[in-house]
Amino acid sequence: MPLTALDVANRLQSTVLGEPNRPITGAAILEDAAPDQIAYIKDAKKIAKGLESAAGTLLIPPAAVEKVTESNCDKSLIVVDDPQEAFLQLVAHFHPEPTPVSIGISEHAFVAPTAKIGEETDIHPTAVIEDGVEIGARCVIHPGAVIGRGSRIGNDCVLYPHVVLYPGMQLADRVVIHACSVIGADGFGYRQIKGEHVKIPHYGTVIIEDDVEIGACTTIDRSFLGATRIGRGSKIDNQVMIGHNCNIGRHNILVSHVGFAGSVSTGDYVICAGQVGVADHVHIGDGAVLGAKCGVHKDLPGGVTYLGTPATPESETIRQVMALRKLPELRTKVKELETQIQQLQEQLRQQLNDDRSQCSAA
Amino acid sequence: MPLTALDVANRLQSTVLGEPNRPITGAAILEDAAPDQIAYIKDAKKIAKGLESAAGTLLIPPAAVEKVTESNCDKSLIVVDDPQEAFLQLVAHFHPEPTPVSIGISEHAFVAPTAKIGEETDIHPTAVIEDGVEIGARCVIHPGAVIGRGSRIGNDCVLYPHVVLYPGMQLADRVVIHACSVIGADGFGYRQIKGEHVKIPHYGTVIIEDDVEIGACTTIDRSFLGATRIGRGSKIDNQVMIGHNCNIGRHNILVSHVGFAGSVSTGDYVICAGQVGVADHVHIGDGAVLGAKCGVHKDLPGGVTYLGTPATPESETIRQVMALRKLPELRTKVKELETQIQQLQEQLRQQLNDDRSQCSAA
Amino acid sequence: MPLTALDVANRLQSTVLGEPNRPITGAAILEDAAPDQIAYIKDAKKIAKGLESAAGTLLIPPAAVEKVTESNCDKSLIVVDDPQEAFLQLVAHFHPEPTPVSIGISEHAFVAPTAKIGEETDIHPTAVIEDGVEIGARCVIHPGAVIGRGSRIGNDCVLYPHVVLYPGMQLADRVVIHACSVIGADGFGYRQIKGEHVKIPHYGTVIIEDDVEIGACTTIDRSFLGATRIGRGSKIDNQVMIGHNCNIGRHNILVSHVGFAGSVSTGDYVICAGQVGVADHVHIGDGAVLGAKCGVHKDLPGGVTYLGTPATPESETIRQVMALRKLPELRTKVKELETQIQQLQEQLRQQLNDDRSQCSAA
Repeated sequence: MPLTALDVANRLQSTVLGEPNRPITGAAILEDAAPDQIAYIKDAKKIAKGLESAAGTLLIPPAAVEKVTESNCDKSLIVVDDPQEAFLQLVAHFHPEPTPVSIGISEHAFVAPTAKIGEETDIHPTAVIEDGVEIGARCVIHPGAVIGRGSRIGNDCVLYPHVVLYPGMQLADRVVIHACSVIGADGFGYRQIKGEHVKIPHYGTVIIEDDVEIGACTTIDRSFLGATRIGRGSKIDNQVMIGHNCNIGRHNILVSHVGFAGSVSTGDYVICAGQVGVADHVHIGDGAVLGAKCGVHKDLPGGVTYLGTPATPESETIRQVMALRKLPELRTKVKELETQIQQLQEQLRQQLNDDRSQCSAA
Repeated sequence: MPLTALDVANRLQSTVLGEPNRPITGAAILEDAAPDQIAYIKDAKKIAKGLESAAGTLLIPPAAVEKVTESNCDKSLIVVDDPQEAFLQLVAHFHPEPTPVSIGISEHAFVAPTAKIGEETDIHPTAVIEDGVEIGARCVIHPGAVIGRGSRIGNDCVLYPHVVLYPGMQLADRVVIHACSVIGADGFGYRQIKGEHVKIPHYGTVIIEDDVEIGACTTIDRSFLGATRIGRGSKIDNQVMIGHNCNIGRHNILVSHVGFAGSVSTGDYVICAGQVGVADHVHIGDGAVLGAKCGVHKDLPGGVTYLGTPATPESETIRQVMALRKLPELRTKVKELETQIQQLQEQLRQQLNDDRSQCSAA
Repeated sequence: MPLTALDVANRLQSTVLGEPNRPITGAAILEDAAPDQIAYIKDAKKIAKGLESAAGTLLIPPAAVEKVTESNCDKSLIVVDDPQEAFLQLVAHFHPEPTPVSIGISEHAFVAPTAKIGEETDIHPTAVIEDGVEIGARCVIHPGAVIGRGSRIGNDCVLYPHVVLYPGMQLADRVVIHACSVIGADGFGYRQIKGEHVKIPHYGTVIIEDDVEIGACTTIDRSFLGATRIGRGSKIDNQVMIGHNCNIGRHNILVSHVGFAGSVSTGDYVICAGQVGVADHVHIGDGAVLGAKCGVHKDLPGGVTYLGTPATPESETIRQVMALRKLPELRTKVKELETQIQQLQEQLRQQLNDDRSQCSAA
């Protein structure tokens, strides 16, 4: 359903600078936007880029207005305090979700008679719900998901296809787990006895708190005793590995291919960029940010951005990288200095001899 | 069915140097080959290794002939322009594939009535094909594969067990996806609002062009709007992560554990070795080669081989690594120079005093 | 079923130091233990930590006894030679496993008529067993596992949900594979012909020897010819990638996100910590230990601990890292030396002039 720039401004309780009747048939990011689409800039600094784009209509923040003149702008502009927020509303308008069709419990799902399933919960064909499982209301259990015996799942959770919960897992409310992720496999622990690696049985569970989202092909191992825990509101990307007995704080962001060994703990609002690795028993403080590929082998205070392996505060790592780049020329320089020193030594020796000869002469 | 060296030479329109009647019962790589097997060397430089091997018969390139004499060779040799190509033909001869059995649409698959399935396409038990899906001809959909509603798949595609396509995915012709890979999970995007990470809905799709092969347990996320795209003929290994809105060029090679953050784009013929990581919005030019474990945080021109983190042209990285190895001894050297300078300073001071005393004496 | 300290001591053929009637209702690791629980210290050096803990009863090694006095200890102590072993026994006592319920071959599993299934083997709903498969006795094949045609599995194996064996795989006895792992996908090999990457067909298999355990979402590719092999007793964590034609020795430990390219071979008792990457055709010797994130591009002798990329013996890497940290200050130092040398040169020149003037004067 197409709109005009004025329609959009009205919806956002704002007004249009420029042509109010410009048609808007869709929303797109700046790089892709066409003249009949609306785009946005998040920051006034991006206004030049916005004005150069092909978008017909732009959402801009108040600070960008002063940078616009009639001569540099042929677009319709709508000024809002949070252009990204407004843009996401418009995107939703142009991409109406299909009304979800309730399927209830499929006759082709395998639900143990002792399982308890909440109201309005969908269980798709080929899903397997084992003995004693409890699932809350309004959940969607996609095809092939396997919920091990005795697991408990709260309300409004979504398990995408082939998610596996080993027995005894605990998910709170509004937990989303993407396809082929595995929650609760045994921790990786062995004792070496007479040359054999003998398995340490893992009796614990995984507790996933409210509003956690977990990507595809991610693995979170059960603890030895007690629980591996993912704190409320944390978001975990695809192909992340969380070892046994980890205790992840609230509102963490863990990007793809991050690996945590056993018993790692994090504070709240920790961010790990892609491919970060953390050794066992390490604690990472509140609000720490670990740059991509960081390797962490000891506790890190919070509130600091780290880079590199071993993880080091950002500015220090950058100094090291810069110094390393100039290391070959430093080596050359040191060789030059060495030569100069030898020359000085030689000169000095010469001069001493000269002095002596002079003295003798004298 | 065993052959002689002469049989093989005839098939390859070549002739035999040495014993023509040597029996060949199989093909093997050089390291594993036995006297009744045929092996190959790709390059004339490997002729010594070939002659030392236990293989009874060798495929060699023309340039290798001059390095062979009666005294150093007890094998049957067959000279061909492309020994690897010839070898692969023979391997195929000795490993006849079982005739594929057409199973059609299994009665134990779950195919929505609104789905359209092409001719000679097999759909195995426990596969799930949702509403509005279209699948072309001669495809094989293995057990447990889940094709989300409205997805479109071309001709001659193979989806191995448990491959998951989220709704709305688009696969062209001859696309192969190995087991447990997930195409189209939500991009990893959140906005922080009042201390919560609020999900940015992802409305886009994934477009996989002709002749793309994707390994096992690989994940390719859907875009925010528009499409994440994998260009024609690109080959992606196991456990690779491609973030939302990536635009991968044609004929790329992405090795295992490579991770691309959101909106990465690559030119054609880009190669990423294992465990490479690329930050969001980076562009990598045509024909760039990223060595294993490269970390990329900014655009890289094509046609260059890069190593290290941050990714740096190969020769530069090697210089840095070499210099780093000698850094401890450089530190020692600088300390020595420091001492020598102090000695020089001391000597010079001494001499100056001596001069002065001499002067006074004089 | 609760015990007293004396009960436990009797079971372990030991005696109690301190209160023998202290009730023990469970076992916990030291950090988590409560007064009515038993914990352990592995090493006498940890005795102070043990005595400070909240645990009511402690298992300690003989060497720790002399460090305990009545005044520093309010706990019940039980002295045993191997406290960890004793602790694991007690944990098992307090966590009785539910008696496994034999389900036999589920009527909702898809078992080809030509497959042979051993005694007391369970095959769960939605598992798929293809033509000609042979499975030994007392195995458990969980929901969604897919066993490709002609594969052979020994006795007492466990395949967790959605494990995929491609056709022709070979598992020995007591092999455990966790959920969503994929064994036998095609090796990642292509030949570039006229600008296209043409697939090299892979005819080989994967052989997994006795007592191997493989984590979740791990991939092990089939070989070109012959077999990719995992040696007896090796333990592989989640999300590990083993390329085609690898030959892994016995009793290896490969931690999460380790990636081996094609044709890598390892000796026995090799340990790779998390996120290690090894290039193709590399051999790693017996007992080598690769620290987390090591990058290996050439053969490494056994019996050595390596760190870094390129992998370097531990002490050497640590020296390099230390030197790198001080590199910025080394640069500063070299600049200082340069200045000092210039001053020396200037002084010397000056002095020479002075001498000459003196000479002239004389």
